Amino acid sequence: MAHAISLLCFDRNLQMGTTEKQNEVYLEPEYAADLASIRKARKRIETFIDTTPVLKSSFIDELSGRKLFFKAENFQKGGAFKIRGACNAVFSLPDEVAKRGILTHSSGNHAAAVALAAKLRDIPAHIVIPKNAPQCKIDNVNQYGGRIVWADSSIESREAIAAKVQEETGAVMIHPFNDGNVISGQGTIALEFLEQVPELEAIVVPISGIALGAKGIKPTIKIFGAEPYGASDAAQSKATNTIVRNVSPRTLADGLRAQLGDLTWPVIRDLVDDIIVVNDKDIVKGMKMLYESLKIVVEPSGAIGLAAVLSKQSASHPDVAECRSIGIVLSGGNVDLDPLWDYMNCACQT
Amino acid sequence: MAHAISLLCFDRNLQMGTTEKQNEVYLEPEYAADLASIRKARKRIETFIDTTPVLKSSFIDELSGRKLFFKAENFQKGGAFKIRGACNAVFSLPDEVAKRGILTHSSGNHAAAVALAAKLRDIPAHIVIPKNAPQCKIDNVNQYGGRIVWADSSIESREAIAAKVQEETGAVMIHPFNDGNVISGQGTIALEFLEQVPELEAIVVPISGIALGAKGIKPTIKIFGAEPYGASDAAQSKATNTIVRNVSPRTLADGLRAQLGDLTWPVIRDLVDDIIVVNDKDIVKGMKMLYESLKIVVEPSGAIGLAAVLSKQSASHPDVAECRSIGIVLSGGNVDLDPLWDYMNCACQT
Repeated sequence: MAHAISLLCFDRNLQMGTTEKQNEVYLEPEYAADLASIRKARKRIETFIDTTPVLKSSFIDELSGRKLFFKAENFQKGGAFKIRGACNAVFSLPDEVAKRGILTHSSGNHAAAVALAAKLRDIPAHIVIPKNAPQCKIDNVNQYGGRIVWADSSIESREAIAAKVQEETGAVMIHPFNDGNVISGQGTIALEFLEQVPELEAIVVPISGIALGAKGIKPTIKIFGAEPYGASDAAQSKATNTIVRNVSPRTLADGLRAQLGDLTWPVIRDLVDDIIVVNDKDIVKGMKMLYESLKIVVEPSGAIGLAAVLSKQSASHPDVAECRSIGIVLSGGNVDLDPLWDYMNCACQT
Repeated sequence: MAHAISLLCFDRNLQMGTTEKQNEVYLEPEYAADLASIRKARKRIETFIDTTPVLKSSFIDELSGRKLFFKAENFQKGGAFKIRGACNAVFSLPDEVAKRGILTHSSGNHAAAVALAAKLRDIPAHIVIPKNAPQCKIDNVNQYGGRIVWADSSIESREAIAAKVQEETGAVMIHPFNDGNVISGQGTIALEFLEQVPELEAIVVPISGIALGAKGIKPTIKIFGAEPYGASDAAQSKATNTIVRNVSPRTLADGLRAQLGDLTWPVIRDLVDDIIVVNDKDIVKGMKMLYESLKIVVEPSGAIGLAAVLSKQSASHPDVAECRSIGIVLSGGNVDLDPLWDYMNCACQT
């Protein structure tokens, strides 16, 4: 079914309003980033990234019984929010350090983002990629000119090979998430989103940086995480109040097979109000709704926020239930659709 | 591969510039619509439709060697441009006529658009639909409260059943394309598009109304049609200078299985510079590129414009080759993606 889409806010040159500043809270320096570092990140990266639009669907609003606002980071450069953190990290480096090149290990969007950020700064990028990474994400790294170094799928293999490359090249490691500059860069989503939709009462996030930015600007806002059952380390960590590792993540959402880090865990522990855990089938239902109603391409990890809001867990969750305006970050749109093209090619008549 | 998207123009309340008016041409009243009727249509429908954004992809620009601008009518209300014509026709009716209800026969987006326009005017809509219509388009008619009357797939069956419904109900026929008000409504795309991107040297169109609007505002602009090999009535008609009918259209692009009408043919004959004919496999390639680079969902009929611009025919076509800025109308985004969801559901791990 197709439905009306409200294109809420597409001005690429939004200015920060002055009224929002009254209630801002600068968090204690116990986290790897804060509102000040996120503001600095925004200035540093603004010429390299897009201000992504916020989308709405009257059909989905009716279905969920509240107003949902979708921050379309699938439209971001490189097809995901990751370029925000990668650019902030890469452009924070002094020239003499940057020229040695940069390095990361990632199965996905961060890999392409680091390659793109390196291209923008005209320095080499070495990208350690596990062999089970989605083809479209590997293609992106190639497209941006990153040098691919293959690893096995385990986190240990990736880290060992990355260490070897670092030793050989002297390149600077840009960690996918456990890096203050990366966290600050991702946090810029919160600044944009709350300028575009100041009424938000909650944001469902894939990223700890957003919690720092959003609670810095609007301390009353609720922040909910969303995780698949097969990789629910954050939910388990919050339940036990200590870092639990994903031993062997099992989920369709390849972007969510990561781990908590010692820099992201304190943010999730203290500032994320709760984690909503959903199964893969719910994620596919969320994707389908986004494709059909908003006419946009989102990857499984990007659709989990909608799946979480529409889940049974949310319906019976007192904090979620009371929110009338919820922001959902559609984190990325890089997904292999080959089964669709195979089908379409078979259906061709000429 | 994912690529940077430039979100060119998303201001929903664009004002008509004054400078563009200098070179406008009001065409002779030999056509069913003109710039004046298109302007009136725009005023009539403006509260009911969205001003759709124009999208760009640096990757596709590089590939095509020119600047391509995509008018995203897949984001339009009802998921296609058809609501423009349907609203203009429905809101042109005097109250005493409108209250008898409206009627159409269509396999697709026009059906849903008429149902939605009737809902907006709070009058009944009877929609004659062939049994081979795509399920998502039938769902849309149901969603907007249209009364479905089934027909066989032939145009004769549809017309006979529509005549019977008209006799029984007194409803007013809103023809899918052979109707001056419908043509004027669809023509409003040209006004928006040329305000958003005045530099356009050509537009690739699925709709004759756009030719009237675009050449009215900018007489030097080239207008190219795009057709699948299996339903190339317009190309054949132009070649023979007389209306040729699609006897049994064979194409994946269900929205292009229509016929020329006596109101649309003169426009195509006189104002469409040429028709570019492509095969279904090229259409699928165009879809894939739009999904991967722009992260948007477009139906086969909506992707044909890009397929045409990237085709071998265009590469060797002197008029197309000289255009540096080409506008492409992405006509709609209503497509059954069930094969994709079947695949994704099989890949679920929880």
